[in-house]
Amino acid sequence: MPNFTQNDAHISELLERMHEISDLGSLGALAEWDQNTAMPEGAGQVRGDQMATLQGVLHERWTSEGLGRLLNQLEQPGTQASQTDADKGLIREARRGYDRATKLPRTLVEELARVQAASFESWRKARTNNDFVSFAPWLGRTISLQREVADRLGFVETRYDALLDQFEPGITSSKIDKLFEPVREVSAVLLKRIQASGHVIDDSCLQGTFAAEKQMEVSETVLRAMGYEFSVRLTVNPDPEFIQASVMAAIHEGGHAVYEQGSAPTLARTLIAGGASMGAHESQSRLWENNIGRSLPFWRGQYPLVKAAFPEHFASVNVETFTRALNKVQPSLIRIEADEVTYNLHIIIRYELERDMINGEVAVEALPDLWNAKYREYLGITPETDSKGILQDVHWSGGFGYFPTYTLGNLYGAQIFHKLHKVFPDFNARLESGETAFILRWLEEHMYAYGAIYEPEQLIQRVTGELPNPEHFVRYLTSKFEGIYGL
Amino acid sequence: MPNFTQNDAHISELLERMHEISDLGSLGALAEWDQNTAMPEGAGQVRGDQMATLQGVLHERWTSEGLGRLLNQLEQPGTQASQTDADKGLIREARRGYDRATKLPRTLVEELARVQAASFESWRKARTNNDFVSFAPWLGRTISLQREVADRLGFVETRYDALLDQFEPGITSSKIDKLFEPVREVSAVLLKRIQASGHVIDDSCLQGTFAAEKQMEVSETVLRAMGYEFSVRLTVNPDPEFIQASVMAAIHEGGHAVYEQGSAPTLARTLIAGGASMGAHESQSRLWENNIGRSLPFWRGQYPLVKAAFPEHFASVNVETFTRALNKVQPSLIRIEADEVTYNLHIIIRYELERDMINGEVAVEALPDLWNAKYREYLGITPETDSKGILQDVHWSGGFGYFPTYTLGNLYGAQIFHKLHKVFPDFNARLESGETAFILRWLEEHMYAYGAIYEPEQLIQRVTGELPNPEHFVRYLTSKFEGIYGL
Repeated sequence: MPNFTQNDAHISELLERMHEISDLGSLGALAEWDQNTAMPEGAGQVRGDQMATLQGVLHERWTSEGLGRLLNQLEQPGTQASQTDADKGLIREARRGYDRATKLPRTLVEELARVQAASFESWRKARTNNDFVSFAPWLGRTISLQREVADRLGFVETRYDALLDQFEPGITSSKIDKLFEPVREVSAVLLKRIQASGHVIDDSCLQGTFAAEKQMEVSETVLRAMGYEFSVRLTVNPDPEFIQASVMAAIHEGGHAVYEQGSAPTLARTLIAGGASMGAHESQSRLWENNIGRSLPFWRGQYPLVKAAFPEHFASVNVETFTRALNKVQPSLIRIEADEVTYNLHIIIRYELERDMINGEVAVEALPDLWNAKYREYLGITPETDSKGILQDVHWSGGFGYFPTYTLGNLYGAQIFHKLHKVFPDFNARLESGETAFILRWLEEHMYAYGAIYEPEQLIQRVTGELPNPEHFVRYLTSKFEGIYGL
Repeated sequence: MPNFTQNDAHISELLERMHEISDLGSLGALAEWDQNTAMPEGAGQVRGDQMATLQGVLHERWTSEGLGRLLNQLEQPGTQASQTDADKGLIREARRGYDRATKLPRTLVEELARVQAASFESWRKARTNNDFVSFAPWLGRTISLQREVADRLGFVETRYDALLDQFEPGITSSKIDKLFEPVREVSAVLLKRIQASGHVIDDSCLQGTFAAEKQMEVSETVLRAMGYEFSVRLTVNPDPEFIQASVMAAIHEGGHAVYEQGSAPTLARTLIAGGASMGAHESQSRLWENNIGRSLPFWRGQYPLVKAAFPEHFASVNVETFTRALNKVQPSLIRIEADEVTYNLHIIIRYELERDMINGEVAVEALPDLWNAKYREYLGITPETDSKGILQDVHWSGGFGYFPTYTLGNLYGAQIFHKLHKVFPDFNARLESGETAFILRWLEEHMYAYGAIYEPEQLIQRVTGELPNPEHFVRYLTSKFEGIYGL
């Protein structure tokens, strides 16, 4: 189990400081969660003041001169030799937090928060009213502020890299370009081949009337089979007319949750407990949801409980029909409803646009046309409205650099899925027999336990034996959909 | 509306420091509330660490040298002249917090918390097993620690006064002795007269089968009539066989809540928002529950809704019978079930014992016998077991000095009730017509708005025109129960 050096005064002091910061952060997260769920109406202002106070204490902790001195000592040449990997990870993340807090003045951080809140409100109205023009000034303001953030944080190649690094440490646009190009290629080619085949999957078996309670039961049973422990809060709202949404969302959120709770107990109360990055996190939700959760072997093992929950509805639906329905490919305007073949095209469009926005190569006013042109080019469809186009996602009301992590997650997930098949030659047979907990056990031991000790690239290399490589995703996608569509 | 001096650098700095401390304290209270209600099992250790961290930050804030210097400046001779009452109250409570934090070493505070947790566990087992001997060592340990706390906090007359002052600023044993003597006297005399009368009130109309939902409805309607706003969390668990418990508990808790939420908005995020003391708080819960909530005029106004909620049960019960049942006097062993006549005798027994424990005049081993002797003397009954005797209350597993505030609350409550009748000569007529919100409006304006700006004695004087005076309670109790029992 990964652990920190014991009885080292510097490491102990760093741990103490990080425990404090992590504990205060957790109390803040609890207060936010409470605000979104249980808090009585009218308490918003009070809670806002409390959160601002907590942020102030956290900022003070992060910018403490003592922490700066300590980090300098821990980073002195030669000291690394005796440090464990956990030590190094902790020092790296502490440095990241210290740098961010000392490089970004409080006035900038406060302005970011204010603009983000106002921009979110503006975006919500703009989407409702299909009114991009009213949102454009806020988007412009967010771009300037984020450019300032990037300049202050610093970067080697492009401004946008500084923003990427907040969500996916170590990644850069030039690395992303190399990783995404084969994804763009295979997605476009597969989509054309599927459309040319004339094949349209009938997914009507997923529609009907499904009691919410029964849907929750099915979701819970599937999550238990994964090995998910219900000591973590997880919220899923079933759609009574569509069974796919709740069950697949539960598996997706379950994937995030098992990763989050799988860190070694020794890492508790530090910033390196939990996932290594947004991409690493997404790799686990997508691995469980797509690679495993939309596969025929998985449903051969789990479909009986769906049939038992809704015996009449699924009486004449076999497991092959059910699984095919879960994998229907159809270009659509909305990212979050996209299938595995088209999903990354949605992300690539957003990546290209936000990279160019931050690097100053595109004007805000030109965005809706650019968006629509890219949708025509990549997906062959055109949004009728900006609400279904450039205004569909909340992300740009807050910042930039997050979108690419979704596709990185898909790549990491496919690479880990490939590894799992090599480790367990009887992988499919086990799934077919209903066994799934062995996957979680392996992932916990080889990936989850390490939290954020390693940056994502290094983590993927340790888990799979090679650096992030898009070929695994290309092969996975091609082989899966050639099979499903009989190409 | 009470307010702080504006544009004064020292007051502004103190406010800023107190806002911070108050916000952090509120986040801690939220985390505790979450722990007791919604938190997933198994998260106790994690939450404990988070709370300890928060306590550490709070301790650091309270012991800050800057705060000490600031308080010295604000307390310099001559500065008071230009300070508002709110300023003075804030400075007084900040001084109290600073002194407490600087006078009590962290090791002592931590030991108190540890011993309190262990003592609570021991008490719980001891009460279940009727085993005072197993609890005695923990009680002894708590006594020594609390004596140390008293010595460090300092006192003028007796050690016990230092502990009292934590819950009821400004109160001392010698003041309490003067306040309690007439209460002891009137309670003993009234009890004897009631018992001699041979009158026994039949309260069977309060027993039966009362749907929990309907009970909640009745409680909510009564609370709304009081003027209670449901933006505050309030928990009441109805007993399906006994309507009195839920409704009277709701009014009692409602009294605490309206006081707590009635502070002027200008006091928000400071230690002087909320009630002035435990006694002042109890005065409001008891005023609403007993003086108002067990009176015939109140139920003449509110009883129709009880009848509407349970039409069959109360078909042949008139409002006089219902109200008499709510006022049945019967010496019993359990404090929290006691009527208004005997309640304070329970408190006086505890007060005398804990005062003597802290002042070193009684040995732990002698306590059960002393307790039982006092119950025989004051109430004419003897506990069959220590579980129904000295082990019934949780309080002594945590500390001392709290019990007297219950009786102080009854005294303050009766004095304020007397004042209300002077202010509103048509008080009873209004209650009878179902009107109650005028009471809350007056209390908010004359008492609640001031939070803890004034210490309890001064507050009572401002609200009622005289210092705490037990004669109001004596007259209230005598007149009420002479009437009810036809003495």
